[in-house]
Amino acid sequence: MKKIRHSLAHILASAVKELYPKAKLGIGPDIDNGFYYDFDNLKNPDLKKIEKKMKELIKKDIKFKRKKITKQQAKKIFKNEPYKLDLLKDLKDITIYESGNFTDLCTGPHIKSTKEIDIDSFKLDKIAGAYWKGDEKNKMLTRIYGLAFKNKNELNKYLKLRKEAEKRDHRKLGKELDLFCFSDLVGPGLPLYTPKGTFIKEALQKRVEEICKQYGFEKVITPHLAKIKLFELSGHAKKFGEELFRVTSARKQKFALKPVQCPHQTQIYASKIRSYKDLPIRYMESNIQYRAEKPGEVGGLNRVYAITVEDGHSFCTPEQVKQEIKIMIKIIQDFYKSLGLWKNHWVSLSLRDEKHPEKYIGEDKDWKQCEKILTEVCKEMKLNAKICKGEAALYGPKIDFMFRDSIGKEIQIPTVQIDFATPKRFNLTYIDKDGKEKHPVMVHRAILGSYERFLALIIEHFAGAFPLWLCPVQIWIIPISSKHIKYAKEIKEQLKDFRTELKNENETISKKIRQGEMQKIPYLLIVGDKEVKNKTVSVRERKKGNIGTMKINQFIKKYGSII
Amino acid sequence: MKKIRHSLAHILASAVKELYPKAKLGIGPDIDNGFYYDFDNLKNPDLKKIEKKMKELIKKDIKFKRKKITKQQAKKIFKNEPYKLDLLKDLKDITIYESGNFTDLCTGPHIKSTKEIDIDSFKLDKIAGAYWKGDEKNKMLTRIYGLAFKNKNELNKYLKLRKEAEKRDHRKLGKELDLFCFSDLVGPGLPLYTPKGTFIKEALQKRVEEICKQYGFEKVITPHLAKIKLFELSGHAKKFGEELFRVTSARKQKFALKPVQCPHQTQIYASKIRSYKDLPIRYMESNIQYRAEKPGEVGGLNRVYAITVEDGHSFCTPEQVKQEIKIMIKIIQDFYKSLGLWKNHWVSLSLRDEKHPEKYIGEDKDWKQCEKILTEVCKEMKLNAKICKGEAALYGPKIDFMFRDSIGKEIQIPTVQIDFATPKRFNLTYIDKDGKEKHPVMVHRAILGSYERFLALIIEHFAGAFPLWLCPVQIWIIPISSKHIKYAKEIKEQLKDFRTELKNENETISKKIRQGEMQKIPYLLIVGDKEVKNKTVSVRERKKGNIGTMKINQFIKKYGSII
Repeated sequence: MKKIRHSLAHILASAVKELYPKAKLGIGPDIDNGFYYDFDNLKNPDLKKIEKKMKELIKKDIKFKRKKITKQQAKKIFKNEPYKLDLLKDLKDITIYESGNFTDLCTGPHIKSTKEIDIDSFKLDKIAGAYWKGDEKNKMLTRIYGLAFKNKNELNKYLKLRKEAEKRDHRKLGKELDLFCFSDLVGPGLPLYTPKGTFIKEALQKRVEEICKQYGFEKVITPHLAKIKLFELSGHAKKFGEELFRVTSARKQKFALKPVQCPHQTQIYASKIRSYKDLPIRYMESNIQYRAEKPGEVGGLNRVYAITVEDGHSFCTPEQVKQEIKIMIKIIQDFYKSLGLWKNHWVSLSLRDEKHPEKYIGEDKDWKQCEKILTEVCKEMKLNAKICKGEAALYGPKIDFMFRDSIGKEIQIPTVQIDFATPKRFNLTYIDKDGKEKHPVMVHRAILGSYERFLALIIEHFAGAFPLWLCPVQIWIIPISSKHIKYAKEIKEQLKDFRTELKNENETISKKIRQGEMQKIPYLLIVGDKEVKNKTVSVRERKKGNIGTMKINQFIKKYGSII
Repeated sequence: MKKIRHSLAHILASAVKELYPKAKLGIGPDIDNGFYYDFDNLKNPDLKKIEKKMKELIKKDIKFKRKKITKQQAKKIFKNEPYKLDLLKDLKDITIYESGNFTDLCTGPHIKSTKEIDIDSFKLDKIAGAYWKGDEKNKMLTRIYGLAFKNKNELNKYLKLRKEAEKRDHRKLGKELDLFCFSDLVGPGLPLYTPKGTFIKEALQKRVEEICKQYGFEKVITPHLAKIKLFELSGHAKKFGEELFRVTSARKQKFALKPVQCPHQTQIYASKIRSYKDLPIRYMESNIQYRAEKPGEVGGLNRVYAITVEDGHSFCTPEQVKQEIKIMIKIIQDFYKSLGLWKNHWVSLSLRDEKHPEKYIGEDKDWKQCEKILTEVCKEMKLNAKICKGEAALYGPKIDFMFRDSIGKEIQIPTVQIDFATPKRFNLTYIDKDGKEKHPVMVHRAILGSYERFLALIIEHFAGAFPLWLCPVQIWIIPISSKHIKYAKEIKEQLKDFRTELKNENETISKKIRQGEMQKIPYLLIVGDKEVKNKTVSVRERKKGNIGTMKINQFIKKYGSII
């Protein structure tokens, strides 16, 4: 597709030049889902007209011809194209591509002829502004985006998925369902969680902590500040560089905001003398860490400055490492199974690139031991792991888990990593059976990773229709008129083990039902004369609509166990 | 007592000069529990010897005589006392006190004669270093502290309470019970909570949140950063000044760390259009805020940079204010009753100082209305409040609650405050019944205040022997020998609703019992041959010791409801 998409970019430019001869050419590469071309001097271009012209050109069976030319020849050809002349400055070997009346400075490759293009497989998509060479000091050009796929079917599939993704966009749904917000006064990249968003965040936290607790993890809490020395010692100051937030005060205090949780947790381990009998020690913590992402890249919950991370570490003896890794993998299984995401997963066993030992820290014998342990774990737990050489972390090999969400997006979150280096850097020790001081091994694990990314993921995965245990509100009780409010209140009282809301605003029933559906409320219980008389509720289930009338006991019996 | 204490300082100096003639005099004032005197050129003074000499002098019935003298006379008298000469530089009116052979530069007042001093009512206490004039650029002098009270009885009472307070010191117990720690690499003022400390912190949080939830509070989560503009608008930038931590990055981001939670919470309120039907809206949040305290003042949990505050606000209509205040007071009652602290409380109704209107912001009519509401609430709820004029907050009057802990220390934590000003500053609004936009009223409340101070308080109040619901570990199961471990495990399984630990280390029973008592474990269950045979446990209760043998069902029945 690369060649077709890139060639379509040339056809686009060719069509624009025919329709808008004053337009000046920028550049036009292929991209993941199609192509684009940047133009100067092109105001309000008519995409329909341009697309029509492109199709005309394609039908002409235009050939793409490559030519090597000299800089002087190029300067002559592009004498009226200032942006091409700007590009020429830095070029040595110059090639051009001719297609019909259109010539572009380009290294290719391209298709041979436009007859290779399925005329229904592409579509002009949208217009956006883009700085020349991506530099905000340069002029803003007009970028036309096009979509291009193998055939009409693939294009339509993409458009359908994109529409679905837009409908599910966590920023849109987050606002509609009132889960989180941003404030100009607080600043970008700093989400504020409303009561409903807080409920979901804490329900997730409770779930993951309950599972981890069963496997012996204990919660700890550490502050967000530390002396920069802590992160210099851990290596994170260097690793995060510009992303590190610095904290100062008029009273000369100097700290950094933690970009990760691990170094703080080592300090709790280090606060006491530890014996081999105390190990493994397993800490977990859900806390905010801060990273100064590029301001332009911050948006929604996927890229924020304040990242709430569920992080956990086991400090153990070398003999215990294998067991610890197995425990962590079981936790990952339990958690993702409970969300119905386990079925679409694959596992990566991420090892060193042996040809590039300079990319890693730590001793060769440690690496060999770690890789052996992880390989054995994958085999013993029948993980069917794909070996990915060169994907290891700086300090050790790891096992990663990949999932697909309901619209096919791949998600990589959970990971288990062995680390011999950090305990040595912090001189963490335990007294072994033989009375000698030894360094423990640190095993890192992420289960749901960052709550922000995870929240974005599940909002989009469930399109806001969360499983019942994650719903801030599970039931709306809707009295038909004011005379049914008393009965509605009785029902609410009987349902006190559920998260219910009584909707007694002065609005029509149909409007309330519509709102309930918009809010993705799992059950709407409507009560009117008949229900009051028969001591029943009329039930509307999310996605199913009206599922009939039942006694409240029946409802509780039927749904009490799953809510 | 002031005069006696100050006079004892002179007697102390007099005794030192007799015993150590080369010692040079600094200053010697009275203090809260006695007196001190600073000396130069005094190495390893013998406090016993000095105290003995002081008593000899006191018995001599020495008179204190005040004299006004000229600077020239003074220079002559103190020609061998360089520190006195240094003090003289800044003095205009010069008075001295003579007592026996001793003369001091002093404005008094003093007792007439040492016969006013009860010879058993004082005691030299300790030696410390102190910079001359408190300036670390000056020389370090030797300070001798003395304790002095009305009589021997009062002195002994003080010594006993101090010993008790030292035993209960949260820094000492925090370490012994492994509740929190500090790290040189992380930095001072930044506590790290171990698993046990985290348990207590979260148990307190759960308790206060459960109570608040019953009264309609909803949890929110806000980040620790915000643009400085947020705090300029709220007035906190000015109020906290030097205490504000600034955050910057190499990517030019600029933020402040929040010193309070209120401004962030206003932004969640402001994220939607609100109707009078939505009010009251009640938010609560337990989160860390940061204040750059003076480095020298940071210590233990009472003064830290990272303060975890349980904060809550109600946004309501003016008509709802009274009801909101009552709700908050009920929450305070419920929470402190559940900790057994309510019985020793008193209430302050803190109003404006009408003579100094410049000390407050907001309109006079708002103040009048607020003071009227609070006065009515105090009356209606029979709070028996003491009116404290001039104790109001910057933006409004308040009700404060004061408690005494088990060793008599007064604690002021919970507070309810009315605030008309903040909603106006942030232009928070709601649409009222008449369709007009109005400002809500904000009611602030603190229940347990900062977790750090509260934790210090309850550690000291309970001397580490927490109520059962706050105990990270409630029961130790101690097998007498390895052959009882199997049975001990069965017991542990039966007690799975409790927080238990199996102590099967290879140590003597008496050592384990001693450790259990040190760790303030509420119940130690010891199992040996007899217990295995009879299917019982031998129970040691905290503070009571052995309370006999019982079946495990009996134990569960007896303690299950209170644990």
